[in-house]
Amino acid sequence: MNRAAGADPSQLPLERVRVVLSHTSHPGNIGAAARAMKTMGLTRLLLVNPKRFPDDEARARSAGADDLLAAARVCSSVDEALADTRFACAVTARQRNLGPPPLAARAAAAEILARTGDGEVALLFGNESAGLSNVEVQRCQRTVFIPANPDYGSLNLAAAVQVLAYELRLAAFDNDPPPCTRTVAFASPPASHQDIERFYQHLERVMVHSGFLDPQRPRRLLPKLRRLFGRAALERDEINILRGLLDAVERQSNAGHVDRREGIGD
Amino acid sequence: MNRAAGADPSQLPLERVRVVLSHTSHPGNIGAAARAMKTMGLTRLLLVNPKRFPDDEARARSAGADDLLAAARVCSSVDEALADTRFACAVTARQRNLGPPPLAARAAAAEILARTGDGEVALLFGNESAGLSNVEVQRCQRTVFIPANPDYGSLNLAAAVQVLAYELRLAAFDNDPPPCTRTVAFASPPASHQDIERFYQHLERVMVHSGFLDPQRPRRLLPKLRRLFGRAALERDEINILRGLLDAVERQSNAGHVDRREGIGD
Repeated sequence: MNRAAGADPSQLPLERVRVVLSHTSHPGNIGAAARAMKTMGLTRLLLVNPKRFPDDEARARSAGADDLLAAARVCSSVDEALADTRFACAVTARQRNLGPPPLAARAAAAEILARTGDGEVALLFGNESAGLSNVEVQRCQRTVFIPANPDYGSLNLAAAVQVLAYELRLAAFDNDPPPCTRTVAFASPPASHQDIERFYQHLERVMVHSGFLDPQRPRRLLPKLRRLFGRAALERDEINILRGLLDAVERQSNAGHVDRREGIGD
Repeated sequence: MNRAAGADPSQLPLERVRVVLSHTSHPGNIGAAARAMKTMGLTRLLLVNPKRFPDDEARARSAGADDLLAAARVCSSVDEALADTRFACAVTARQRNLGPPPLAARAAAAEILARTGDGEVALLFGNESAGLSNVEVQRCQRTVFIPANPDYGSLNLAAAVQVLAYELRLAAFDNDPPPCTRTVAFASPPASHQDIERFYQHLERVMVHSGFLDPQRPRRLLPKLRRLFGRAALERDEINILRGLLDAVERQSNAGHVDRREGIGD
């Protein structure tokens, strides 16, 4: 498909990309990030517990992009910001032990754009000094790194947003269909962020109840399982199967009668 | 040629790239530009008649790149800043009537890198609001534009430096720079075919025993789960976790006492 044909067909995919800034300390960076987004045609900014927002410095640094600031959604958690996304990437220079597979910025832009065909996608950026926590990273299906100087790889937050927004715009206007790492066509739509998190909660409950997981000595079992299922990028149909099995196991062990459909939308 | 082979051969060409900022108004942008340069391995900053320099705001925004500020050369004219260069590009969104031929950022990076074989090269950036004058642009062999939103194409000065420095670094590494992270992601060896098949047998046993899978009406549940786990390409460690959980669930439901290690090689 030639995405460049017709009247700015790049807009639709770009409008499905959320930029999520988690625990941003400096309002100037929020404004500069909004400006960086708008220059590349991104519009959807979400802020998780920003230190100061709204703020005059944010408005000043946003230049003409104050419309993005006005429309920005403030969330109280990363889960809230990722709600209803079908694919999320954590932007981090640090490769995590149990983190999702890493992609370089250019490859990530192509994949993110391809995933907009499934619905909402998100790019998650961490705090200026602390970055993203492992818990935040493990909520995403990929990590994204911006190739940088190994001796000094610390991009400013808004500069990182600019580079990724730029790569997304170029990918959106690419005349070739963006490459997608999926080798198997999805049989059912990707699961939503909430469905995936509810599955992990259900799995943990069964692991604890069966005595397999000792909350006092978790042995990183849950991060390892998040890594496994994150790699697979779970589909809605698969979540229903897995949770159906967990329900059957719970009923059998008289773990209390959980509604089989609990928490799964249709 | 794979420039990435050997000990960072990308440094030589990148060290031949001058970043020239002409008549910069805000010292914060000078500091942010220095930081953007250093993250991509550029080192040579030249300032033509900056409004305020040196300056505390420049130092603050440069973060760890104050060494580039200390080494920055202040010039009184663009000609002085471009002295002894063999190739110079004017970064401007506006196409000029009599200006040099325009290149998009990515193509420009490749050409600039190639020209470092001839000697010093330069990227010339104008004032934040006025941009570059025609006289300044006409001192360059090319103009460079960053593809942007036609309705709002105004990148921050340091953001534009970041995008071009990023493209230069990728070009220096033949578009395949290594991640700057050094830690190796957690991974255990891939599971053997036999381990994977034993896992599926074990999973099926639990599915049937829990009543979730009716052998008379299998509803393609097993092929769907094979597709999911096949996509993830299971590792040995993951098989052990999954089978450990299946064992715990079986023991709990008194499904008979299966040897926990049954069938898992070590």
